[in-house]
Amino acid sequence: MILEKITSEGIAHNSYLLGSRNEAAVIDPRRDGEVYVQRARALGLKITSIFETHRNEDYVIGSMDLSRITGASIFHGTHLAFSYGTGVSEGDVVPLGSLEITVLETPGHTEESISLAVRERDVSDEVLMIFTGDALFAGDVGRTDFYPLQKEGMAGKLHASIWTKILSLGDGVVIYPAHGEGSSCGEAISDREITTVGYEKKGNPLLRMNRKEFIDYKVREHHYTPPYFRKMEELNIRGAPLLTGIPLLRPLSPTEIRDYRAAGAQIVDIRAPTSFGGGFIPGSISIWREGLATFIGWMLTYQDPIILIDDFNLDLDRVTRQFLRLGYDNLLGYCAGGFPAWFKAGFEMEVIEQWTPPMIHERLDPSLYLLDVRSIGNWNTMGHIKGAHHCWVGELRDHLDEIPKDRLVVAYCDAGYKGNMAASLLRKEGYPRVVNLLGGMAAWKQYRYEIIR
Amino acid sequence: MILEKITSEGIAHNSYLLGSRNEAAVIDPRRDGEVYVQRARALGLKITSIFETHRNEDYVIGSMDLSRITGASIFHGTHLAFSYGTGVSEGDVVPLGSLEITVLETPGHTEESISLAVRERDVSDEVLMIFTGDALFAGDVGRTDFYPLQKEGMAGKLHASIWTKILSLGDGVVIYPAHGEGSSCGEAISDREITTVGYEKKGNPLLRMNRKEFIDYKVREHHYTPPYFRKMEELNIRGAPLLTGIPLLRPLSPTEIRDYRAAGAQIVDIRAPTSFGGGFIPGSISIWREGLATFIGWMLTYQDPIILIDDFNLDLDRVTRQFLRLGYDNLLGYCAGGFPAWFKAGFEMEVIEQWTPPMIHERLDPSLYLLDVRSIGNWNTMGHIKGAHHCWVGELRDHLDEIPKDRLVVAYCDAGYKGNMAASLLRKEGYPRVVNLLGGMAAWKQYRYEIIR
Amino acid sequence: MILEKITSEGIAHNSYLLGSRNEAAVIDPRRDGEVYVQRARALGLKITSIFETHRNEDYVIGSMDLSRITGASIFHGTHLAFSYGTGVSEGDVVPLGSLEITVLETPGHTEESISLAVRERDVSDEVLMIFTGDALFAGDVGRTDFYPLQKEGMAGKLHASIWTKILSLGDGVVIYPAHGEGSSCGEAISDREITTVGYEKKGNPLLRMNRKEFIDYKVREHHYTPPYFRKMEELNIRGAPLLTGIPLLRPLSPTEIRDYRAAGAQIVDIRAPTSFGGGFIPGSISIWREGLATFIGWMLTYQDPIILIDDFNLDLDRVTRQFLRLGYDNLLGYCAGGFPAWFKAGFEMEVIEQWTPPMIHERLDPSLYLLDVRSIGNWNTMGHIKGAHHCWVGELRDHLDEIPKDRLVVAYCDAGYKGNMAASLLRKEGYPRVVNLLGGMAAWKQYRYEIIR
Amino acid sequence: MILEKITSEGIAHNSYLLGSRNEAAVIDPRRDGEVYVQRARALGLKITSIFETHRNEDYVIGSMDLSRITGASIFHGTHLAFSYGTGVSEGDVVPLGSLEITVLETPGHTEESISLAVRERDVSDEVLMIFTGDALFAGDVGRTDFYPLQKEGMAGKLHASIWTKILSLGDGVVIYPAHGEGSSCGEAISDREITTVGYEKKGNPLLRMNRKEFIDYKVREHHYTPPYFRKMEELNIRGAPLLTGIPLLRPLSPTEIRDYRAAGAQIVDIRAPTSFGGGFIPGSISIWREGLATFIGWMLTYQDPIILIDDFNLDLDRVTRQFLRLGYDNLLGYCAGGFPAWFKAGFEMEVIEQWTPPMIHERLDPSLYLLDVRSIGNWNTMGHIKGAHHCWVGELRDHLDEIPKDRLVVAYCDAGYKGNMAASLLRKEGYPRVVNLLGGMAAWKQYRYEIIR
Repeated sequence: MILEKITSEGIAHNSYLLGSRNEAAVIDPRRDGEVYVQRARALGLKITSIFETHRNEDYVIGSMDLSRITGASIFHGTHLAFSYGTGVSEGDVVPLGSLEITVLETPGHTEESISLAVRERDVSDEVLMIFTGDALFAGDVGRTDFYPLQKEGMAGKLHASIWTKILSLGDGVVIYPAHGEGSSCGEAISDREITTVGYEKKGNPLLRMNRKEFIDYKVREHHYTPPYFRKMEELNIRGAPLLTGIPLLRPLSPTEIRDYRAAGAQIVDIRAPTSFGGGFIPGSISIWREGLATFIGWMLTYQDPIILIDDFNLDLDRVTRQFLRLGYDNLLGYCAGGFPAWFKAGFEMEVIEQWTPPMIHERLDPSLYLLDVRSIGNWNTMGHIKGAHHCWVGELRDHLDEIPKDRLVVAYCDAGYKGNMAASLLRKEGYPRVVNLLGGMAAWKQYRYEIIR
Repeated sequence: MILEKITSEGIAHNSYLLGSRNEAAVIDPRRDGEVYVQRARALGLKITSIFETHRNEDYVIGSMDLSRITGASIFHGTHLAFSYGTGVSEGDVVPLGSLEITVLETPGHTEESISLAVRERDVSDEVLMIFTGDALFAGDVGRTDFYPLQKEGMAGKLHASIWTKILSLGDGVVIYPAHGEGSSCGEAISDREITTVGYEKKGNPLLRMNRKEFIDYKVREHHYTPPYFRKMEELNIRGAPLLTGIPLLRPLSPTEIRDYRAAGAQIVDIRAPTSFGGGFIPGSISIWREGLATFIGWMLTYQDPIILIDDFNLDLDRVTRQFLRLGYDNLLGYCAGGFPAWFKAGFEMEVIEQWTPPMIHERLDPSLYLLDVRSIGNWNTMGHIKGAHHCWVGELRDHLDEIPKDRLVVAYCDAGYKGNMAASLLRKEGYPRVVNLLGGMAAWKQYRYEIIR
Repeated sequence: MILEKITSEGIAHNSYLLGSRNEAAVIDPRRDGEVYVQRARALGLKITSIFETHRNEDYVIGSMDLSRITGASIFHGTHLAFSYGTGVSEGDVVPLGSLEITVLETPGHTEESISLAVRERDVSDEVLMIFTGDALFAGDVGRTDFYPLQKEGMAGKLHASIWTKILSLGDGVVIYPAHGEGSSCGEAISDREITTVGYEKKGNPLLRMNRKEFIDYKVREHHYTPPYFRKMEELNIRGAPLLTGIPLLRPLSPTEIRDYRAAGAQIVDIRAPTSFGGGFIPGSISIWREGLATFIGWMLTYQDPIILIDDFNLDLDRVTRQFLRLGYDNLLGYCAGGFPAWFKAGFEMEVIEQWTPPMIHERLDPSLYLLDVRSIGNWNTMGHIKGAHHCWVGELRDHLDEIPKDRLVVAYCDAGYKGNMAASLLRKEGYPRVVNLLGGMAAWKQYRYEIIR
Repeated sequence: MILEKITSEGIAHNSYLLGSRNEAAVIDPRRDGEVYVQRARALGLKITSIFETHRNEDYVIGSMDLSRITGASIFHGTHLAFSYGTGVSEGDVVPLGSLEITVLETPGHTEESISLAVRERDVSDEVLMIFTGDALFAGDVGRTDFYPLQKEGMAGKLHASIWTKILSLGDGVVIYPAHGEGSSCGEAISDREITTVGYEKKGNPLLRMNRKEFIDYKVREHHYTPPYFRKMEELNIRGAPLLTGIPLLRPLSPTEIRDYRAAGAQIVDIRAPTSFGGGFIPGSISIWREGLATFIGWMLTYQDPIILIDDFNLDLDRVTRQFLRLGYDNLLGYCAGGFPAWFKAGFEMEVIEQWTPPMIHERLDPSLYLLDVRSIGNWNTMGHIKGAHHCWVGELRDHLDEIPKDRLVVAYCDAGYKGNMAASLLRKEGYPRVVNLLGGMAAWKQYRYEIIR
């Protein structure tokens, strides 16, 4: 047996390559799927089945691309009208080498969600492992808020799915969920790399609730839903445009960038906060390299073309993939020569000051507008700076009328990245005076300055 | 948390990179260890500890190399006099980010064997996972035959270690052993990629025995011990020569190879059986590319330099690693231009005919000497061709006096690789007429020819 | 200035990336053109122009693909009705950074052939280098036999182009031709990596002839024209299908291969001669890995799908490119598990004996049919084995009626590769008894056996 | 024949792999020489000779490492007492496949300098190409200032070498020098990628002078000599420490960096100017990624360990090579997590403002101290900002007493990189107020502000 987890960074999406005796299945493949094909080749496997645990909301699924290359069959649940693939129902069995994959219907996160229980029939009739999709995570369970009018109903279904279908399989069953820590599909997903039914029963707080507590908790729970989810839902029901290789980005000159920007292109600066703050193209949005997967879906439109700004243009292939996984096929190019090409051309640049905690602490007075852009969860549980106003960075654009243009705005967040992103957005929206708190609340804490809870 | 399994192909050795909050530990690192450093860099981790579950017999451990690069501490059991590292005992705890690694002494395979139990203290006091070294595998347990006079004692210790220390941790604990299927450290290791205490209790036949049955079984069990194990034991107690990068092999001309061969160099042909059989340099040993890790330790000496023969010399870096992992630092080079350079130079070549099952079946008569070179286990359980003589390929060199030189020797094995290796050895030893059964018993079975049990 | 030569192995095609001050031109790009884009990115260049020195016959040109990615303009000569790009004429100048590229019309190989003279105007008015396409090579000149009725006219035009346009530029001008040694676009192209007008005047035998001698020589000259040239001509006038990444081949099981073969698929075995000879799938054509670019265009059809056979399936990406460059988009897949998967499945296999020179010399008698498959040039100038019959391997299929089926056919060539290819073709065509001379005439010579001239 | 130029970026050093009929020579190999071995393997070549055109001053030569791996012989001139290799003299011939390499003694740059003329004897007795080392470059000639008391003598020798030995070979000879544009071994080396004797006669201004003019010019010429040259001279005469693979750098935590810095470690920030300016570790020297090869030899000591700071730690292998090539084996590690780890830890950081031309122009008054850190050549020929003081950035440390600490220092250079490096040095040396002119004179010019000549 072979089991490899292929994780897409940023969105914390787990896909799996499961192999046995020269055959392989892929569970929840991502769009840039050559990794599955290459691993299968290296391992001497032929991919014969592709499973979708549910219609994913947070990335473009790559089933159709992978099926085109490999000839594999696509399987998913029956309770949604997919334009492609084959529906499977409770109890259906798909053999894979010496393994047996049994479909369990586990609705709750969505109606068509399925889990996949794996047995080695020549060893034991017990289940060895289960792919739980978005039903059960390490330390958390799936969101049940996608059908706003049926929150209670979905939460009830999820409870039934978890207790009846999954926990009942026995403590020794290994759990492979579709997401890890950092996913927007679950706020409290643990970072543990592996887990079992037995361990979750002890370590997952949701699983220690009774049915009522569970449903109440899930109904009250708050989740952010990035606007790009809608696009994913569309693409993942009818199948996304096929991807044939990772496109090579076009190098653009400063003059071209200036012109494209004037015509509406989105300028995304992928450098770190201090690097951005030290000088950037006016109108840029700061989304650092490692934050792309999480934030482009909040910050960027699907219509206007996108231009990337870096200093040395290293490893842009990996950057490109972050966009493709979220369906952003509108990447126009990148600044050839990096940001220095811009200032060498003598074009206008802006600066956002990055203030250390002492600099802010010194000047704390009502003339500052302190803007906390962390999640509401962190605001609530971890406290904030006295006098701060809260607005989640993802929703900032819809709340600009609450933020005064005539005061110095100090944006801050957990560690200084999102604050800088917020600051870049405000500058783009015409705020003349914006600074970022370097290191965010993490650094603020190190200085033992006052935190309000 | 981060957990990556890094497997060394062929020897089926598992090492692990375990990370938490920017710190990492490596368990049982292999000698060519840049993979740990590179993964750690990519994941933003600093390697701070290295654990050896026991003094390994089947590969050169890379602890000292890895410690030199990273500055990490090396930990191993106390019941053996290692020349390096720090001894740890039952109950010792090494923190790693938010994790806690607790040492469990689990002797039986060797005296100094330890297992490592991992807890997330902020989640639960239960153990999440355990690294069991060579104590417990998926479907099997560790060998207890390394101290021939204490087989019973060691088996008893292993039983105690498994039952008292490991199984008692609870069904939901995930097990990460040091070996997978195909290792010479356990004949019956299952190919399952992951397992738990709960699953092993059900699926591991050894764990369904009582103590007496277990000890009896272990005492009677037969294992092969390749001669290179002795060398590994030496190197792994005092520390192997440090490796600084994978050496680049020297390209050699046919003339150089002829001369080195005359001076005693070992010629290793890494092509597939039919490719070897179609033409090879006289005196070559056939060990196909993917069989190197398993067979060089049986077939080659540490003294005489080694020369590789391939057709296109692709991916020799990977080939080189197989040798280094077993301490074969005496690689001289490879045939520039591949085997064709040899025949283009007009040098002498030999051929070993590859016979299909019908060709052999047709000619089966007492003039043939049928030589079965599979493991004694396969000979016993899966039957053999009528009239065949058995000798494990690894021990062939010590049994040449049993094999007649004046008859046509037909070597065969499971699928045709080891048979060809045996045939190459016999040719080297002066047997004039040797052929190989193509496809081995697997193909023989397909033709439904008689099998004696 | 930057100048990089990108050579496509096998077809010995040279393309060039010429850069100056952040701009670049590509001359005669190949189809799998990401190399230009990646080099340009690494060098900080933006590709702005693409030049085709002529409508190429021997590979699919990648201009349209490259233009799509980069936005660069495509330029070619005006004397052919291309469906794309812009025509340029004598004296047209395209600036590139601080360089100046001047078009010289240099017909003779084809009517629309152009050469490109490069000047650094801020240094000198002299020409620094010239891209000569197929007009002038190191040691040879372009073919003039593509318009069979105008051989003399084309030869005259070529003479004029070389003498008037190129040689007149001065001895110090560096020459960059479209082909190197081994191309089918010139039998006698030298292997020198670089040359100049001055050196060619001394070292190129064609340039020491007078006009009449030159034309006579060119009219009499013999060239082989592989059948695939026709396909290239079609594709390169209207533009080939766009390529988006190198396709990932499908792994196929022995059973699938057997079935596809029955349905007409072409089986191409890419191993070396002895490896092929030791065992192969009946009906395979032997074209070793490094001979693909040269021979698939002779041996394979564009209609029937193609399946690759190797032992270890290493570096298939590079193999795939050889096919794409010649427009063979009909690659179906490869044998998962390599040729051993075939014999392990117990399927039928064939063998072609590889005879060393002494083995053949011993048996030389009229019962053998000696088949020399080298080029007619080598047959004429280097002598042959007594009693041999000549037929160029590329044309063998059209001359089967001359080769007796009831005799043992001994195929031979220069070094043993083409002979084996011929042998495989004969076996496919039903010849029961075929062997190959290992090492070909090269090895024959080493044994000092008789050679007839 | 095969000829590949392997260029080391930054120092603009050219080495060459010359191959013919399975043999290869390497001319002036760099220290990290696996590229030669790998290319040779891919091309089927065996490296048999290594030539050093002279004892190099600007990088560590890799001859001994390469010889160790390949067994090749090392050749260099006889007029210096090397501790290794074999001396060759005027007229010595080293055969290489079908080529002939003839040694020409061409002193002038150094006493032991040689050039290597290459002939194809089977084609012509003319020379095809010549490797000229540091005797003759495209557009320039070698430095003659290394023996301060013999400037005139060396210039005379160089004149004789060029005119008698090189130019006399004929216009069509291709020239391959040891350096390209940007090397500190010649201020005016052209960027042309290829050249010939004929072209240089026309395009190289030095070659249009008579002997007296030439010597006068060379004697008067000004060159910078970085302090690290002395170290290179030592290493290259006795052989540098052998390099076995590119060392993997250690990841360091902010705390470790703080402590190492306190103990004297050199902090090198490899980000671009604005990124550095936006926030950096106090005491850092700013040497952007692409400037390392040129400036570490001016800025860093060989004693104190070196720590690298980047944002995302991408492609550090390539960065490491820049240091090794100059003999800086004292790389300690890099900041794990990048510069953001520093500010997240709440450690102190500094900022250097990056002013655009208008910002400086506005404030131009005597209270500013304008510091021009370009080469004296650029200062002289291209003009400067009114009121500026000149000091080459490489020599800044020796002229600190000329620069006032109590004024705002505005550093500027050609494009904004060296100015920032100078600013970082001044901050490290305790200057409280320093800014950099973004875009340097290039941007200043774009604004058409006054330039003094």
